[in-house]
Amino acid sequence: MTDTEEIRLLIDRRIDALGNHDAQAANQCLARDIVAYEVAGPLQVPSEHVTDVGIAQSWMDSFEEGPWITVQDLVIHVEGSIAFAHSIQRLKGIGSDKSQIDLSMRSTMGFAKRENGWMIVHSHTSSPVKF
Amino acid sequence: MTDTEEIRLLIDRRIDALGNHDAQAANQCLARDIVAYEVAGPLQVPSEHVTDVGIAQSWMDSFEEGPWITVQDLVIHVEGSIAFAHSIQRLKGIGSDKSQIDLSMRSTMGFAKRENGWMIVHSHTSSPVKF
Repeated sequence: MTDTEEIRLLIDRRIDALGNHDAQAANQCLARDIVAYEVAGPLQVPSEHVTDVGIAQSWMDSFEEGPWITVQDLVIHVEGSIAFAHSIQRLKGIGSDKSQIDLSMRSTMGFAKRENGWMIVHSHTSSPVKF
Repeated sequence: MTDTEEIRLLIDRRIDALGNHDAQAANQCLARDIVAYEVAGPLQVPSEHVTDVGIAQSWMDSFEEGPWITVQDLVIHVEGSIAFAHSIQRLKGIGSDKSQIDLSMRSTMGFAKRENGWMIVHSHTSSPVKF
Protein backbone atom coordinates (compact mmCIF):
# COMPACT_ATOMS: atom_id res chain seq x y z
CA MET A 1 0.00 0.00 0.00
CA THR A 2 1.36 3.47 -0.83
CA ASP A 3 1.70 6.17 1.81
CA THR A 4 -1.14 8.08 0.13
CA GLU A 5 -3.38 5.01 0.41
CA GLU A 6 -2.40 4.54 4.06
CA ILE A 7 -3.28 8.16 4.86
CA ARG A 8 -6.61 7.88 3.03
CA LEU A 9 -7.32 4.76 5.09
CA LEU A 10 -6.40 6.60 8.31
CA ILE A 11 -8.84 9.41 7.49
CA ASP A 12 -11.60 6.89 6.70
CA ARG A 13 -10.82 4.85 9.83
CA ARG A 14 -11.28 7.89 12.03
CA ILE A 15 -14.51 8.95 10.30
CA ASP A 16 -15.93 5.41 10.58
CA ALA A 17 -14.98 5.25 14.26
CA LEU A 18 -16.76 8.56 14.93
CA GLY A 19 -19.91 7.24 13.23
CA ASN A 20 -19.68 4.02 15.26
CA HIS A 21 -19.21 5.99 18.53
CA ASP A 22 -15.95 4.11 19.06
CA ALA A 23 -13.87 6.76 20.80
CA GLN A 24 -10.98 4.40 21.42
CA ALA A 25 -10.57 3.61 17.71
CA ALA A 26 -11.14 7.25 16.70
CA ASN A 27 -8.45 8.52 19.03
CA GLN A 28 -5.93 5.85 18.08
CA CYS A 29 -5.48 7.89 14.88
CA LEU A 30 -4.27 10.93 16.83
CA ALA A 31 -0.75 11.73 17.98
CA ARG A 32 -0.60 12.54 21.72
CA ASP A 33 0.87 15.94 20.87
CA ILE A 34 -1.71 16.85 18.21
CA VAL A 35 -2.30 20.56 17.57
CA ALA A 36 -6.05 20.92 17.00
CA TYR A 37 -8.10 23.84 15.75
CA GLU A 38 -11.79 22.87 15.78
CA VAL A 39 -14.95 24.41 14.29
CA ALA A 40 -16.15 25.86 17.60
CA GLY A 41 -13.86 27.66 20.07
CA PRO A 42 -11.45 27.89 21.73
CA LEU A 43 -8.83 29.04 19.18
CA GLN A 44 -6.78 25.93 19.94
CA VAL A 45 -8.01 22.85 21.76
CA PRO A 46 -5.43 21.47 24.26
CA SER A 47 -4.04 18.17 22.95
CA GLU A 48 -4.91 16.42 26.22
CA HIS A 49 -8.58 17.27 25.59
CA VAL A 50 -8.51 16.13 21.95
CA THR A 51 -6.89 12.81 22.86
CA ASP A 52 -9.12 12.20 25.92
CA VAL A 53 -11.27 9.16 25.09
CA GLY A 54 -13.96 10.17 27.60
CA ILE A 55 -14.38 13.63 26.07
CA ALA A 56 -14.47 12.12 22.57
CA GLN A 57 -17.08 9.56 23.69
CA SER A 58 -19.31 12.28 25.19
CA TRP A 59 -19.15 14.26 21.96
CA MET A 60 -20.09 11.22 19.83
CA ASP A 61 -22.85 10.29 22.26
CA SER A 62 -24.36 13.77 21.86
CA PHE A 63 -25.49 12.39 18.47
CA GLU A 64 -28.53 10.11 18.48
CA GLU A 65 -27.66 9.28 14.86
CA GLY A 66 -24.31 9.97 13.28
CA PRO A 67 -22.08 11.89 13.08
CA TRP A 68 -21.78 10.85 9.46
CA ILE A 69 -19.01 12.66 7.65
CA THR A 70 -18.55 12.69 3.89
CA VAL A 71 -15.34 13.85 2.24
CA GLN A 72 -15.07 15.77 -1.04
CA ASP A 73 -12.13 17.13 -3.05
CA LEU A 74 -9.55 15.34 -0.91
CA VAL A 75 -5.95 16.09 -1.86
CA ILE A 76 -3.05 14.39 -0.06
CA HIS A 77 0.52 15.68 -0.31
CA VAL A 78 3.08 13.23 1.05
CA GLU A 79 6.86 12.98 1.08
CA GLY A 80 9.04 10.83 3.30
CA SER A 81 7.58 10.84 6.79
CA ILE A 82 5.33 13.92 6.61
CA ALA A 83 2.09 14.65 4.80
CA PHE A 84 -0.81 17.06 4.73
CA ALA A 85 -4.29 16.73 3.30
CA HIS A 86 -7.21 19.06 2.69
CA SER A 87 -10.84 18.44 1.86
CA ILE A 88 -14.37 19.78 2.07
CA GLN A 89 -16.42 17.77 4.55
CA ARG A 90 -20.08 17.56 5.44
CA LEU A 91 -21.18 16.39 8.87
CA LYS A 92 -24.74 15.15 9.28
CA GLY A 93 -26.56 13.66 12.20
CA ILE A 94 -29.40 13.90 14.67
CA GLY A 95 -28.65 15.33 18.07
CA SER A 96 -29.83 13.75 21.32
CA ASP A 97 -32.35 16.64 21.43
CA LYS A 98 -33.65 15.45 17.98
CA SER A 99 -32.13 18.47 16.22
CA GLN A 100 -31.02 17.94 12.60
CA ILE A 101 -27.32 18.64 12.21
CA ASP A 102 -25.92 19.44 8.77
CA LEU A 103 -22.62 21.28 8.76
CA SER A 104 -20.32 22.03 5.83
CA MET A 105 -16.68 22.29 6.87
CA ARG A 106 -13.14 22.64 5.57
CA SER A 107 -10.56 20.19 6.90
CA THR A 108 -6.78 20.35 6.78
CA MET A 109 -4.77 17.64 8.47
CA GLY A 110 -1.06 17.16 9.02
CA PHE A 111 0.47 13.70 9.40
CA ALA A 112 3.71 12.18 10.59
CA LYS A 113 4.94 8.63 9.99
CA ARG A 114 5.94 7.33 13.40
CA GLU A 115 6.95 3.92 14.77
CA ASN A 116 3.43 2.48 14.50
CA GLY A 117 2.58 4.09 11.17
CA TRP A 118 0.93 7.34 10.12
CA MET A 119 -0.62 9.54 12.82
CA ILE A 120 -2.62 12.77 12.70
CA VAL A 121 -0.36 15.43 14.28
CA HIS A 122 -2.44 18.45 13.25
CA SER A 123 -6.12 18.96 12.54
CA HIS A 124 -7.76 22.20 11.47
CA THR A 125 -11.51 22.04 10.91
CA SER A 126 -13.61 25.14 10.32
CA SER A 127 -16.74 26.64 8.87
CA PRO A 128 -16.82 30.11 7.34
CA VAL A 129 -17.69 32.92 9.76
CA LYS A 130 -20.46 35.35 8.79
CA PHE A 131 -19.40 38.96 9.52
CA MET B 1 19.46 28.93 4.86
CA THR B 2 17.50 25.85 5.95
CA ASP B 3 14.14 24.99 4.39
CA THR B 4 12.46 25.86 7.70
CA GLU B 5 14.08 29.30 7.63
CA GLU B 6 13.05 29.81 4.00
CA ILE B 7 9.44 28.95 4.83
CA ARG B 8 9.44 31.25 7.86
CA LEU B 9 10.75 34.01 5.58
CA LEU B 10 8.02 33.28 3.01
CA ILE B 11 5.32 33.61 5.69
CA ASP B 12 6.84 36.88 6.90
CA ARG B 13 7.25 38.20 3.35
CA ARG B 14 3.57 37.69 2.64
CA ILE B 15 2.48 39.28 5.93
CA ASP B 16 4.76 42.28 5.33
CA ALA B 17 3.44 42.68 1.79
CA LEU B 18 -0.17 42.65 3.05
CA GLY B 19 0.69 45.38 5.59
CA ASN B 20 2.41 47.40 2.84
CA HIS B 21 -0.60 47.01 0.49
CA ASP B 22 1.75 45.44 -2.06
CA ALA B 23 -0.56 42.92 -3.73
CA GLN B 24 2.04 41.93 -6.31
CA ALA B 25 4.57 40.91 -3.66
CA ALA B 26 1.93 39.26 -1.48
CA ASN B 27 0.66 37.12 -4.34
CA GLN B 28 4.13 36.12 -5.54
CA CYS B 29 4.14 33.81 -2.50
CA LEU B 30 1.12 31.87 -3.80
CA ALA B 31 1.08 28.93 -6.20
CA ARG B 32 -1.33 29.50 -9.13
CA ASP B 33 -3.21 26.34 -8.15
CA ILE B 34 -3.52 27.21 -4.44
CA VAL B 35 -6.43 25.64 -2.55
CA ALA B 36 -7.68 28.33 -0.17
CA TYR B 37 -10.14 28.19 2.71
CA GLU B 38 -10.58 31.68 4.16
CA VAL B 39 -12.16 33.04 7.36
CA ALA B 40 -15.32 34.26 5.61
CA GLY B 41 -17.20 32.24 3.02
CA PRO B 42 -17.39 30.62 0.55
CA LEU B 43 -16.25 27.17 1.75
CA GLN B 44 -13.41 27.27 -0.79
CA VAL B 45 -12.17 30.36 -2.61
CA PRO B 46 -11.40 29.68 -6.29
CA SER B 47 -7.63 29.82 -6.86
CA GLU B 48 -8.06 32.36 -9.67
CA HIS B 49 -9.66 34.74 -7.13
CA VAL B 50 -6.96 34.20 -4.50
CA THR B 51 -4.16 34.80 -6.99
CA ASP B 52 -5.86 37.82 -8.65
CA VAL B 53 -3.71 40.85 -7.82
CA GLY B 54 -6.62 43.27 -8.32
CA ILE B 55 -8.84 41.43 -5.83
CA ALA B 56 -5.97 41.25 -3.33
CA GLN B 57 -5.27 44.98 -3.76
CA SER B 58 -8.95 45.86 -3.14
CA TRP B 59 -8.96 43.80 0.04
CA MET B 60 -5.78 45.46 1.36
CA ASP B 61 -7.09 48.89 0.40
CA SER B 62 -10.24 48.26 2.46
CA PHE B 63 -7.86 48.88 5.40
CA GLU B 64 -7.02 52.51 6.18
CA GLU B 65 -4.33 51.16 8.54
CA GLY B 66 -3.01 47.61 8.45
CA PRO B 67 -3.74 44.78 8.10
CA TRP B 68 -1.08 44.00 10.66
CA ILE B 69 -0.76 40.30 11.35
CA THR B 70 1.18 38.82 14.26
CA VAL B 71 2.07 35.13 14.43
CA GLN B 72 2.17 32.99 17.59
CA ASP B 73 2.99 29.33 18.23
CA LEU B 74 4.28 28.77 14.71
CA VAL B 75 5.30 25.17 13.99
CA ILE B 76 6.78 24.21 10.62
CA HIS B 77 7.04 20.57 9.48
CA VAL B 78 9.22 20.11 6.41
CA GLU B 79 10.66 17.17 4.52
CA GLY B 80 12.07 17.12 1.01
CA SER B 81 9.90 19.32 -1.18
CA ILE B 82 6.74 19.55 0.95
CA ALA B 83 5.95 21.31 4.20
CA PHE B 84 3.06 22.43 6.36
CA ALA B 85 2.86 25.02 9.11
CA HIS B 86 0.30 26.05 11.70
CA SER B 87 0.01 29.07 13.95
CA ILE B 88 -2.34 31.33 15.85
CA GLN B 89 -2.57 34.73 14.20
CA ARG B 90 -4.04 38.06 15.14
CA LEU B 91 -5.08 40.55 12.49
CA LYS B 92 -5.46 44.18 13.46
CA GLY B 93 -6.25 47.27 11.48
CA ILE B 94 -8.57 50.19 10.88
CA GLY B 95 -11.12 49.86 8.12
CA SER B 96 -11.77 52.56 5.53
CA ASP B 97 -15.01 53.19 7.50
CA LYS B 98 -12.81 53.84 10.61
CA SER B 99 -13.93 50.56 12.23
CA GLN B 100 -11.40 48.89 14.55
CA ILE B 101 -10.55 45.40 13.30
CA ASP B 102 -9.08 42.86 15.73
CA LEU B 103 -9.50 39.24 14.68
CA SER B 104 -7.94 36.13 16.23
CA MET B 105 -7.45 33.35 13.71
CA ARG B 106 -5.94 29.91 13.21
CA SER B 107 -3.74 29.43 10.14
CA THR B 108 -2.56 26.24 8.49
CA MET B 109 -0.51 26.46 5.32
CA GLY B 110 0.84 23.84 2.95
CA PHE B 111 3.99 24.46 0.90
CA ALA B 112 5.73 22.92 -2.09
CA LYS B 113 9.31 23.52 -3.22
CA ARG B 114 9.05 24.35 -6.89
CA GLU B 115 11.50 25.65 -9.51
CA ASN B 116 11.66 29.14 -8.03
CA GLY B 117 11.66 28.06 -4.39
CA TRP B 118 8.97 27.47 -1.78
CA MET B 119 5.37 28.41 -2.64
CA ILE B 120 2.14 28.39 -0.63
CA VAL B 121 -0.03 25.68 -2.23
CA HIS B 122 -2.68 25.55 0.49
CA SER B 123 -3.97 28.09 2.98
CA HIS B 124 -6.63 27.49 5.61
CA THR B 125 -7.48 30.45 7.83
CA SER B 126 -10.42 30.43 10.22
CA SER B 127 -11.96 31.79 13.35
CA PRO B 128 -14.08 29.68 15.69
CA VAL B 129 -17.81 29.67 14.93
CA LYS B 130 -20.25 30.43 17.75
CA PHE B 131 -23.16 27.96 17.70
